[in-house]
Amino acid sequence: MNIAILGTGSVGQALAGKLMSLGNDVTVGTRDVEVSLTRVEPDRMGNMGIGQFMVDNPGVKLVTFNDAINSDTDLIINALGGESILEVLGAIDPNLIDSKVMIDVANPLDFSNGFPPSLTICNTTSLGEQVQTQFPTLKVVKALNTVSNPVMINPTALSGNHNLFICGNDMDAKNIVGGVLISMGWNSSQIIDLGDITNARGTEMFLPLWVRIFGKVQTPMFNIGIVTE
Amino acid sequence: MNIAILGTGSVGQALAGKLMSLGNDVTVGTRDVEVSLTRVEPDRMGNMGIGQFMVDNPGVKLVTFNDAINSDTDLIINALGGESILEVLGAIDPNLIDSKVMIDVANPLDFSNGFPPSLTICNTTSLGEQVQTQFPTLKVVKALNTVSNPVMINPTALSGNHNLFICGNDMDAKNIVGGVLISMGWNSSQIIDLGDITNARGTEMFLPLWVRIFGKVQTPMFNIGIVTE
Repeated sequence: MNIAILGTGSVGQALAGKLMSLGNDVTVGTRDVEVSLTRVEPDRMGNMGIGQFMVDNPGVKLVTFNDAINSDTDLIINALGGESILEVLGAIDPNLIDSKVMIDVANPLDFSNGFPPSLTICNTTSLGEQVQTQFPTLKVVKALNTVSNPVMINPTALSGNHNLFICGNDMDAKNIVGGVLISMGWNSSQIIDLGDITNARGTEMFLPLWVRIFGKVQTPMFNIGIVTE
Repeated sequence: MNIAILGTGSVGQALAGKLMSLGNDVTVGTRDVEVSLTRVEPDRMGNMGIGQFMVDNPGVKLVTFNDAINSDTDLIINALGGESILEVLGAIDPNLIDSKVMIDVANPLDFSNGFPPSLTICNTTSLGEQVQTQFPTLKVVKALNTVSNPVMINPTALSGNHNLFICGNDMDAKNIVGGVLISMGWNSSQIIDLGDITNARGTEMFLPLWVRIFGKVQTPMFNIGIVTE
């Protein structure tokens, strides 16, 4: 697949590396390519700079947001922080995103008051819904936003049953995304389709609990599994 | 223990029945005892009326909210819907709730727009925090609000590792609540103390995902378990 990943942070890098290793044609979009390439040092969270990532992953293309999506793009991934995707997509030719499938991995986290973050939008709306509303012909599938980067790309590393929630309005798009998830190591029995995109309220509002569990388990290598009788 | 349960709905009934069966002295508080006793028919959700519950459980005492808490009360349980607890506690002699331990089981669910509910308060505050702030000498422990009534009182019915989150500012109070949870069948290894009462934001904001998972599994007999490497 031709995959355009918007965002050069740790989420974008993890997905770009994994999806390229699986044989996909991966393009990463950034605001300013020259500035991104200078980022060779780890950031203050210890995450690799995108400049170093590009040195280590010469098969990945790094271009501007506007150049990342073209008529050959099969799948867009939103790996930008917070609500940035709304501005970035708004600057792209609408014809290029029309009818395309997008995995929305982002959470509208607000770190303005430090850690743990709150959400910039929640409760009666969600980031997933706002993207879908502003770009109605885009097929938005909310997925992967309830797990850390290393779990996203290596789900079998966890030793027990655990689940991934997806939602979106277009069933064909959800099936395509399901295929991508399975290619990354997820088993179809782990993936729970909650329904339409309004269910993104549920998965995004899980983040305040996720960050607190993270504080207790002290590792990003965790997830939740549903247990029944 | 002398336990005062505020609220006569399905949560209050489930906890009252279980805690009495374990040998506790259980008093249920309601707004109007006479009106409550007339409720012998199931409600529109199919839950038993408190009037019928009292017929079936003659050992439980049903009194007004103000009479439910006295100097002998060891533990208060908030099993009221939404934010009702703030008004109910506000009408009780402050000396009677001073230094008492309260399990806050409630979630600030808003069904005014139907199902699934949103929350009346969330994100930068929580019901647990509001109770603690308005009644600073009460020892509020948020617990049991992330599971259904039947799971609360019968956690071993689920076939796999699953977890319960608690939080609160007073460690002694959390230990007392932990003892009550263990008496109801929870194993100490299942109980995760997230820290102070601000963590109630996390557990209350899990509800929007909980109701959506409930919609998929079609049974209240489920919970989540944390899976690691």
